[in-house]
Amino acid sequence: VTTETTASGGSSARPQRADARRNAAAILDAATSCLARDPDASISEIAKAAGVGRVTLYGHFDSRATLVAAVVERSMRESDEALRGLDLSGDPADALVRLIEATWRITYRYGALVVAAERSMPDADLVAAHSPHRDRAEQLIERGRAEGRFRSDVPTSWLVTVLHTVVHAAANAVHDGELTAAEAPRLIEATMLGVTTPPGGVVPAAAP
Amino acid sequence: VTTETTASGGSSARPQRADARRNAAAILDAATSCLARDPDASISEIAKAAGVGRVTLYGHFDSRATLVAAVVERSMRESDEALRGLDLSGDPADALVRLIEATWRITYRYGALVVAAERSMPDADLVAAHSPHRDRAEQLIERGRAEGRFRSDVPTSWLVTVLHTVVHAAANAVHDGELTAAEAPRLIEATMLGVTTPPGGVVPAAAP
Repeated sequence: VTTETTASGGSSARPQRADARRNAAAILDAATSCLARDPDASISEIAKAAGVGRVTLYGHFDSRATLVAAVVERSMRESDEALRGLDLSGDPADALVRLIEATWRITYRYGALVVAAERSMPDADLVAAHSPHRDRAEQLIERGRAEGRFRSDVPTSWLVTVLHTVVHAAANAVHDGELTAAEAPRLIEATMLGVTTPPGGVVPAAAP
Repeated sequence: VTTETTASGGSSARPQRADARRNAAAILDAATSCLARDPDASISEIAKAAGVGRVTLYGHFDSRATLVAAVVERSMRESDEALRGLDLSGDPADALVRLIEATWRITYRYGALVVAAERSMPDADLVAAHSPHRDRAEQLIERGRAEGRFRSDVPTSWLVTVLHTVVHAAANAVHDGELTAAEAPRLIEATMLGVTTPPGGVVPAAAP
């Protein structure tokens, strides 16, 4: 769909010199909701949804990959703020379940953006964008290990990677229609309670 | 590196009408070893390693994505043949460890091809290419569930997805230098023994 092409970016009703910051925010908002629905949403669709011309969009983001990276960075910043208030004290396994519930709600809200990010962003950039989330999980897992509740015979960084990987696998499975969004968090929780239980320990039952 | 460009594909010393089948096989071999080292290996590098011109290569594979898909399909066929003789009888948890050891050895042999495949192939194509491996894992997991050894409160397909995801996460972590290839199989085994243990069951110790 490339019906909307404006040679100078000025064919829309908005004044061309309007607040560039507002345009950039509108483009990010539009990209977030377009990519949440369709990981292959085109620049034309996103520009149209933002109410700007393609040339205006390219004035802010020089490629689709740059735009996807900006959307991912903003979404990570916002979700980090949302998760910062989460109570992760008390039993580490219970705290892990709370972290997964909250992380899933946010991941799910971004829908197919997870898929778009994995298709378009280099691995290292994706890992870097997730660093506040990795740090939060790492702290909880370290505490659980210190308290003997989580396994400490494998590196903490590996457990964090498995958590990240399993959440993303669930998001992809929902996108592909293999899981429903409603059943996903219980599966992630059940899986991670098994992953973190020390060898010789008993796997806790996941919430019903 | 685009030093080798031949207008007609005929600048090499080989006769232009030589066995096309042999050329295609040489290109697949070269692509397999180039992509194992560097997931971003270019068409020019692969053509050079195969001893053919780029035009000859494009005569067989119309794009880099087509070539990567062909390499992945061949590697999946070969690894399926290698795994077909594996003894998966006896205790399901022991059999799972044997399956992981053998799968890892093969996955590791293909090196960065795993990374190249994830960057270039659509999810659905990747899933389809893995289907013999998924079927093998599914049968073992179903048996372990029937015998009460593996958890059956989550779908079998989810456990298969987690196994696939965790093996690939380990391959990526080795590629990124976060894990060594030597420690990866033990981490995958420890993780999957935890993932498959039923709630209320005791997580078996992974091999030392």
